Amino acid sequence: MSLIAKTPPPPYYAVIFTSTRTEGDHGYAAMAERMVALAQQQPGFLGAESARNEVGITVSYWKDLKSIRAWKANAEHLEAQRQGRAQWYSAFTTRIAKVERDYSL
Amino acid sequence: MSLIAKTPPPPYYAVIFTSTRTEGDHGYAAMAERMVALAQQQPGFLGAESARNEVGITVSYWKDLKSIRAWKANAEHLEAQRQGRAQWYSAFTTRIAKVERDYSL
Repeated sequence: MSLIAKTPPPPYYAVIFTSTRTEGDHGYAAMAERMVALAQQQPGFLGAESARNEVGITVSYWKDLKSIRAWKANAEHLEAQRQGRAQWYSAFTTRIAKVERDYSL
Repeated sequence: MSLIAKTPPPPYYAVIFTSTRTEGDHGYAAMAERMVALAQQQPGFLGAESARNEVGITVSYWKDLKSIRAWKANAEHLEAQRQGRAQWYSAFTTRIAKVERDYSL
């Protein structure tokens, strides 16, 4: 994905996923890469941004709530969510937010 | 700041600031640290999360749009914004979003 997502004019939606990881990889890196590729193929996907130090932040952008719900219910993504809860993340928070305004340099 | 922000039940607001940096520090690290400390003192500040690799993502959470506007207009923050545009950032996008729902592990 490009570094700063090129999103259309608001309104659109953001899914802000903030997490801390457990020790070791346990298949995480490969699955994270696969989920990015898979998300990009979903209807309504507008872009994503990601960075990780002590905390990891991934923000994905979506056309509407319907496209977010469909992505959350994707079978392969559901399996990744299950493994995330079981072994990859020590903690996470997911926030669904409606982008009302944006500006860029 | 704590790694994953402890925010109250929605609705509340998120400011998603995604950026790429220019080369060199030029006073950036000290100012960034100062802005985190200053933001924490503002009315309506609820927390923040930050990570940087190739792209930097800082998400700050706020009670309402009024508190975001007041922070944007803070004199010391205005000077930081000016220097950010002039020398620290090669590109950035700021998005103002209303958090409608969240859930955590």
